Amino acid sequence: MSLDAIYEPVREDLARVEARLVAVSQVGPSWLAELLAHSLGSGGKRLRPALVLLSGSFHDYDPGRLVPMAAALEVLHTATLVHDDAIDHSPLRRSRPTVNRVWGEDKAILLGDYLLAQAEELVSETKSLRVIRLFARAIMTIARGELGQAFSAFKLEQTREQYLARIAAKTASLTTLATQSGAILSRAPQATITALEDYGYNLGVAFQVIDDILDFVGDEAEMGKPVGSDLGEGTLTLPAMLVLERYPGDNPVRRLFQGEGERRENINLAVKLVAESGVLEECYQVARDYSARATASLDTLPDIAARGSLKELAQYVVMRRR
Amino acid sequence: MSLDAIYEPVREDLARVEARLVAVSQVGPSWLAELLAHSLGSGGKRLRPALVLLSGSFHDYDPGRLVPMAAALEVLHTATLVHDDAIDHSPLRRSRPTVNRVWGEDKAILLGDYLLAQAEELVSETKSLRVIRLFARAIMTIARGELGQAFSAFKLEQTREQYLARIAAKTASLTTLATQSGAILSRAPQATITALEDYGYNLGVAFQVIDDILDFVGDEAEMGKPVGSDLGEGTLTLPAMLVLERYPGDNPVRRLFQGEGERRENINLAVKLVAESGVLEECYQVARDYSARATASLDTLPDIAARGSLKELAQYVVMRRR
Repeated sequence: MSLDAIYEPVREDLARVEARLVAVSQVGPSWLAELLAHSLGSGGKRLRPALVLLSGSFHDYDPGRLVPMAAALEVLHTATLVHDDAIDHSPLRRSRPTVNRVWGEDKAILLGDYLLAQAEELVSETKSLRVIRLFARAIMTIARGELGQAFSAFKLEQTREQYLARIAAKTASLTTLATQSGAILSRAPQATITALEDYGYNLGVAFQVIDDILDFVGDEAEMGKPVGSDLGEGTLTLPAMLVLERYPGDNPVRRLFQGEGERRENINLAVKLVAESGVLEECYQVARDYSARATASLDTLPDIAARGSLKELAQYVVMRRR
Repeated sequence: MSLDAIYEPVREDLARVEARLVAVSQVGPSWLAELLAHSLGSGGKRLRPALVLLSGSFHDYDPGRLVPMAAALEVLHTATLVHDDAIDHSPLRRSRPTVNRVWGEDKAILLGDYLLAQAEELVSETKSLRVIRLFARAIMTIARGELGQAFSAFKLEQTREQYLARIAAKTASLTTLATQSGAILSRAPQATITALEDYGYNLGVAFQVIDDILDFVGDEAEMGKPVGSDLGEGTLTLPAMLVLERYPGDNPVRRLFQGEGERRENINLAVKLVAESGVLEECYQVARDYSARATASLDTLPDIAARGSLKELAQYVVMRRR
């Protein structure tokens, strides 16, 4: 199923979210408008806004609060991408040059700060102190997760639990915030909020595990960035972790992290080893388990169109190619 | 008058703010606690927290809202310093190694993000949607001001108006937010809010003009950083601007910005020229004018101890040596 078909129940309000994102870019001076349009208009999946709107559909659907919240989530997501790309010195994102590549890392840092604050300002439109506080806490969690990743770069001794905790912090915190805030802003009862929180958390973990798989096997053209970039940055994701477990002796991941041999050659060998070793099936199984848990958490909710979409979305994130 | 003496009317609550800042650092994991303690505990003037508390003293002084707000301002200020130092690759801040120097620029970017969100979370404790929104907008203004500075780096054609607009955005927006939020959170009438806003704005501009002077004439040991660093980063501040006006021909600032001659030699010559040309007296006069306007805006307020402190503070910022 295509994302367009999945998003169908909230199609009109997703268009309103797009309009809000365009409005965010329409500010002076012109260089700021250009930076904002470049970063916000880069054709993402708009997954987080859709999660807000779909999760807001089970009780008092209130577009006046859900649309700014959905826009806030996308602006926040964009802020984290802009800073991530600056940190990783990435030249490309979705096949387009990054802000740091075009304007420099100093501008990328400052644009990310602007976007973080713009996101907070949009959230304040919901007038919900509970959601405002959750939003701030989610950014703290994401930053802590990214810091944890930076501090564990090029370290071989990492457990699967540490990996899962890290991706929960850096990715699932945002999908959880999306579903949770959608539920809260529609004044849903606590049981519904909890069910949608569980959904958002499990979906986010599944999403990130697939992201980490695609970094090894994705099509470079479709992904818009070279394969093996995580390894190149010293980030030990699940596929690399499993390859290290399976081949504890001489291993290109180990050599790369210990600075032995030629860097790009080690990355290429590791990518090949991941593909040939069969670890990917195990990684996909981990993602499918989280996806199944996401789906199961929807069981207690009424069978409306939005629930169908959320179930389809849980399928989509593990089937996606980019 | 010393800062301690000026802060006397709010001494106890400033100690509570310090305790909140310590509490902010007491989180896991240990590397995060260390980063937070390093950045928050670096002995700043605590000017912004004092402005919140003093400005909150004219009506219903409410420490339950003013103390978290004051802590939020200091955390936000720290976030901007951490990002500024990362952008400028500065090795020192207040004579101590910067976060980017000790832990790297990637960690500094992420720590700054964490601090921005921590500041927002503290603001949410005030439960004031008006202040929450002003806070987000102030961060946007600061980021826009810093971006403007980055985009005008090494450009010779800049007007005094552009300079003032830039320092208003990057510095006065935060002092304005401090005085404004103190007034709002103490439920002051609009006339008091406006008077304190004017004070905060003018104080902030005066403060930054002095900062820009001290970058040329400050004692390196007292300042904790080398003189001429603004010029080295291509930032055209008021003293350099006036020296360019006065010596329109061959000029070390012009040579530096146009990449002619040896960089450090041009900076040293520019520092010398600023000191000998007499432009500093004009710069001090600009700062004193803003300081006087800050003081004048307090005239309509009741003559309480906090008002005396704010007046002393307006004196202090133009007299300070660091």
